[in-house]
Amino acid sequence: MIVVTKPDISDERIEEIVQYIERAGVQPHVSRGTDRTVIGIIGKADPSLAEHLRSMRGVEDVIKISKSYKLASRDFHPDDTVIEIKGVKIGGDELVVMGGPCAVESPEQIDEIARLVKAAGGQILRGGAFKPRTGPYSFQGIGVEGLIMMAEAGRKHGLLTITEVMTPEYVDICAEYADILQVGTRNMQNFDLLRKLGTIKTPVLLKRGFSATYDEFLNAAEYILAGGNPNVILCERGIRTFEPYTRNTLDLAAIPSLKTLSHLPIISDPSHGTGRRELVEPMAKASVAAGADGLIIEMHTDPDNSMTGDGVQSLFPDQFAALLKDLEKLAPIVGKRFDTPKAPAEAFREWKK
Amino acid sequence: MIVVTKPDISDERIEEIVQYIERAGVQPHVSRGTDRTVIGIIGKADPSLAEHLRSMRGVEDVIKISKSYKLASRDFHPDDTVIEIKGVKIGGDELVVMGGPCAVESPEQIDEIARLVKAAGGQILRGGAFKPRTGPYSFQGIGVEGLIMMAEAGRKHGLLTITEVMTPEYVDICAEYADILQVGTRNMQNFDLLRKLGTIKTPVLLKRGFSATYDEFLNAAEYILAGGNPNVILCERGIRTFEPYTRNTLDLAAIPSLKTLSHLPIISDPSHGTGRRELVEPMAKASVAAGADGLIIEMHTDPDNSMTGDGVQSLFPDQFAALLKDLEKLAPIVGKRFDTPKAPAEAFREWKK
Amino acid sequence: MIVVTKPDISDERIEEIVQYIERAGVQPHVSRGTDRTVIGIIGKADPSLAEHLRSMRGVEDVIKISKSYKLASRDFHPDDTVIEIKGVKIGGDELVVMGGPCAVESPEQIDEIARLVKAAGGQILRGGAFKPRTGPYSFQGIGVEGLIMMAEAGRKHGLLTITEVMTPEYVDICAEYADILQVGTRNMQNFDLLRKLGTIKTPVLLKRGFSATYDEFLNAAEYILAGGNPNVILCERGIRTFEPYTRNTLDLAAIPSLKTLSHLPIISDPSHGTGRRELVEPMAKASVAAGADGLIIEMHTDPDNSMTGDGVQSLFPDQFAALLKDLEKLAPIVGKRFDTPKAPAEAFREWKK
Amino acid sequence: MIVVTKPDISDERIEEIVQYIERAGVQPHVSRGTDRTVIGIIGKADPSLAEHLRSMRGVEDVIKISKSYKLASRDFHPDDTVIEIKGVKIGGDELVVMGGPCAVESPEQIDEIARLVKAAGGQILRGGAFKPRTGPYSFQGIGVEGLIMMAEAGRKHGLLTITEVMTPEYVDICAEYADILQVGTRNMQNFDLLRKLGTIKTPVLLKRGFSATYDEFLNAAEYILAGGNPNVILCERGIRTFEPYTRNTLDLAAIPSLKTLSHLPIISDPSHGTGRRELVEPMAKASVAAGADGLIIEMHTDPDNSMTGDGVQSLFPDQFAALLKDLEKLAPIVGKRFDTPKAPAEAFREWKK
Repeated sequence: MIVVTKPDISDERIEEIVQYIERAGVQPHVSRGTDRTVIGIIGKADPSLAEHLRSMRGVEDVIKISKSYKLASRDFHPDDTVIEIKGVKIGGDELVVMGGPCAVESPEQIDEIARLVKAAGGQILRGGAFKPRTGPYSFQGIGVEGLIMMAEAGRKHGLLTITEVMTPEYVDICAEYADILQVGTRNMQNFDLLRKLGTIKTPVLLKRGFSATYDEFLNAAEYILAGGNPNVILCERGIRTFEPYTRNTLDLAAIPSLKTLSHLPIISDPSHGTGRRELVEPMAKASVAAGADGLIIEMHTDPDNSMTGDGVQSLFPDQFAALLKDLEKLAPIVGKRFDTPKAPAEAFREWKK
Repeated sequence: MIVVTKPDISDERIEEIVQYIERAGVQPHVSRGTDRTVIGIIGKADPSLAEHLRSMRGVEDVIKISKSYKLASRDFHPDDTVIEIKGVKIGGDELVVMGGPCAVESPEQIDEIARLVKAAGGQILRGGAFKPRTGPYSFQGIGVEGLIMMAEAGRKHGLLTITEVMTPEYVDICAEYADILQVGTRNMQNFDLLRKLGTIKTPVLLKRGFSATYDEFLNAAEYILAGGNPNVILCERGIRTFEPYTRNTLDLAAIPSLKTLSHLPIISDPSHGTGRRELVEPMAKASVAAGADGLIIEMHTDPDNSMTGDGVQSLFPDQFAALLKDLEKLAPIVGKRFDTPKAPAEAFREWKK
Repeated sequence: MIVVTKPDISDERIEEIVQYIERAGVQPHVSRGTDRTVIGIIGKADPSLAEHLRSMRGVEDVIKISKSYKLASRDFHPDDTVIEIKGVKIGGDELVVMGGPCAVESPEQIDEIARLVKAAGGQILRGGAFKPRTGPYSFQGIGVEGLIMMAEAGRKHGLLTITEVMTPEYVDICAEYADILQVGTRNMQNFDLLRKLGTIKTPVLLKRGFSATYDEFLNAAEYILAGGNPNVILCERGIRTFEPYTRNTLDLAAIPSLKTLSHLPIISDPSHGTGRRELVEPMAKASVAAGADGLIIEMHTDPDNSMTGDGVQSLFPDQFAALLKDLEKLAPIVGKRFDTPKAPAEAFREWKK
Repeated sequence: MIVVTKPDISDERIEEIVQYIERAGVQPHVSRGTDRTVIGIIGKADPSLAEHLRSMRGVEDVIKISKSYKLASRDFHPDDTVIEIKGVKIGGDELVVMGGPCAVESPEQIDEIARLVKAAGGQILRGGAFKPRTGPYSFQGIGVEGLIMMAEAGRKHGLLTITEVMTPEYVDICAEYADILQVGTRNMQNFDLLRKLGTIKTPVLLKRGFSATYDEFLNAAEYILAGGNPNVILCERGIRTFEPYTRNTLDLAAIPSLKTLSHLPIISDPSHGTGRRELVEPMAKASVAAGADGLIIEMHTDPDNSMTGDGVQSLFPDQFAALLKDLEKLAPIVGKRFDTPKAPAEAFREWKK
């Protein structure tokens, strides 16, 4: 940590700051420059020291050299984390594809989509039972019933399941039915929810807040890790910018950047990341080329009539299958492995749009 | 609502869309242009219709003409909402000032600060008992004890109190001790918290999410209003931009804009909105000039040693008192009223920094 | 300047960096911390040294403590710069108001608007002869003829004039006719234009790029100052954010921030900064309350038929006059002076919208 | 085009707007809704009509259905544009790689780098002779001499050349020496420069402004096309966001989006787009996977001592060669072709970092 002082600071004030640092149990090293004096701090300081120093008179800036997160950092854990769930490994050399509708709507809908996800080569079924919606009058999901329908469809077709959990009180029931719990972009800093997820062992897919920095994203992961749950999967899903054409701006540099900063697996969500069906395929491929460990993709058999209106970004089943075929060829070029069933074409014939 | 079709849409597909709209119980009006066909929709449509239409093949865009929020809209409620709490009116011609520390630290601290807020002319004491923090290792507030200390200090010095609530399960206890409950910027779309706040009558100060649009902000307010609690106060607290000098970019145009779109009171937070003590005074004045109904300002007797490190943006007591004296002169020019005690100078002599 | 090294750097590499710094003629001070080694640099380094160091292997970051601009910095020039043009002082205790149409359209139009600006109390007439337009098919201004019309209108009504210059080759002719030259937001980093403006003495109003940081803004001013023209006026005109309701987000904290960092005068443009007529008045007042030295405001006698379509953000003459009356009351509260003519009401009777 | 009126508009005002539209030579179609009246406009309107209508009283919004650019639009030109320069085709099924230093520094430097670009399989040599720099005290390029050095190196090694032009007066001399002229991000809306480039036939690589929307980007291209130069290559190079870790946020969704909106070739700049050497390789691959027609990549033999300090984002020659080997495998998966020389390893042995 480095304290930069204001140009007009008095020697007395520098001395007070130095003594303050010493009382905190770390060592100050004063260097006087042409314009300013800087005070380097050596030793493991309490995380709040930087904040206190920044608020002291005479201090212009405090620059942290060490990171504020520990367990999420690659410095702390140099090897890639690989999370294994019933034989599916996330974060290793296998590419993982999660597919499914925005919302679970009926047993028939989720069963049919699960069949198609499996036939195309996906390993995990996604689907929302509880939906966070911008306005109170929009469809909010069908709740626990949806969890049950999705668990049944996953079991039947041999798929893991992932679903979003929005509030601490629903964590236990969601964990009972789903293999992976998802924290949505709006809840990335819902700290009580993160703390609750730290108390279980179910893997958590943590979506980046749509205006969160990498540092804040890893600090959010740190809440879950620090609570005792080591199974965190990061997910880039687009950030908010001034560009109106796309729903969000998918920040693919986040993938190699977070791989450098952290050991956690990271997947990409090209559906929410673009908000446009025709962009899902190129951005899915780009995500894998950038080093993603997996993808989460919306697919629907009848997007025109999806209950959430997110159909606009859902692939049709045949598009989903074709994309997975391409990923099978692309994956090896970036050191990953992905296998699709030999003859899935039959399964998708009826779904040509 | 207006549906814009793609240039190459077939007549059959237009007919299908028209029938879909009719089945939704509203009237489609088709106009064929040189490039595209547009379908105007007349009648009160279900909020999800736009989303469904947007996801249909052949549709390029759906433009909403009516707003998605109702109770928060000025169209619905043309007169300004004025919220009265124990004689203090928020949203009328009285300017309201909320002052206090980032976090309640001890009975002595909050009592002394309450005395100074009152002496300067403030009407409401702010202070955090539960603190949302980016990282899990930072100070998280002293909890319920802090609520009790603040309630006692408010009562003793004749001030209303406001405190942040972070999770649905703490709403009831916070409402027992505080006069106003604050929803922080990271929780603006914590929909379960908003729904819970809709079930009580305690006024809620809702901070704008740091990347929320006006439309999303008013939809968040709509959650509380739709639940049955009409007492919502909006708060502009800065948005995230690319500028690193300030902690956030205080968007003051939000004040007159939200006054146009909504009838709810709106106050400004120049402390979090800038993150720099020396910018609080000019931006507080600018907020009032832009039409704010009030201000929420951090003030601390010993910012160097504040427990959260937010001291860097806290005013010293004498700065706080001087600002309020200036606001007394400024308020009448924009049609507001604000009175400070006749001779507060004594109270602040000892606090000159 | 401080060099932060990577955690795994070798002693040999540190020594190479140290020698590199010494060869640049400045002094390195090495401090070894728990995680990393930092190298402080003392002495006046060449501006490119930081860039070179940042690109060296083993270097994680280079933190500049001194600013990259000098002549624009308040450290270099502690007193406020006051620019006097024919008796009008910009940057002192006088508030300056520039008013006029987006584009000069005809001798009659600019003469009538000049008369109204003067009657309302404005000191400077604005008007565009050369217009930067997003698309090539939009109206691009009437050129030199417009300069002549505006100069004549200014002379007749006793107003200074300001106009935008877009390219180095037009600087001389614009300077012949106008008292102040404006650099538009899209040209803030048109370095050849800035360099040309550094060779004359005509005052330059430099608009902030719509995505420029304060640091880049002051570096752009530095180009003009370094060329030999000390007469630079800064102008905040809004930045681009994700909010669609306003055309830009007027960053009023830029005003006190730039006053701290620099000695140059700064004015505000609430017309382009909001893009909505009804927001101009509150944001003009807020700008003055935040410490602006002046305002540049679009006013038009017939906004419905303005040639650029910027009429949507132009005030009607009576709104302009009423705003200036209010500014007369507001200015003294923030230490400024502004006088409007005793009885301007007559002049505006016919212009009530 | 659709005009949305304010809720409280009078019938008389609607009639005035209707007549105004009719006088503009197009047809208004009025539809009265529950809340508002909308007026659809049919026929080819003058581009300024929307702007005029937006500024009229009683109008809330004007929504353009047709695009403001024509020649750049895929509607106008359905087939992909392929630009052929001395046998190299940009925009077809060949992937194009431009490599070289940020700035030309000496004949030896550019000759050596040209040799390595060729050996690795690149087709085009990049290098700056005129450099746009944020501050006036940074290295500004070596000028015309650099153009000559680069032309010579290109000729000798069989590479096309590309260089940046910053001002209209240098267009002709740059076009004499280079095969492609580059417009930098800060000059995307330097309209006089764009107009000048429209008068020649030399291909222009137009970089997206770092805060430009797709619509503004294509309007900037339209300036060049409308002037008579059909040879425009678009380049995504990152936009400015709040994320500090990367220099810019490379918006790869721009690639398939611009391919949908326009027929022009588009390439990606992962060097400026990330500002970090270690991110160039994954983002180069992701760009190709997203559908880019080519890449422009910084490569330097001695990044530690590059004159611009951009060495931090320059690849070492062996990294550059290894990346191109990988692209050879990746290209066919997305329908492109890219060939590297059979045995380049020798050429790079000495350049292992």
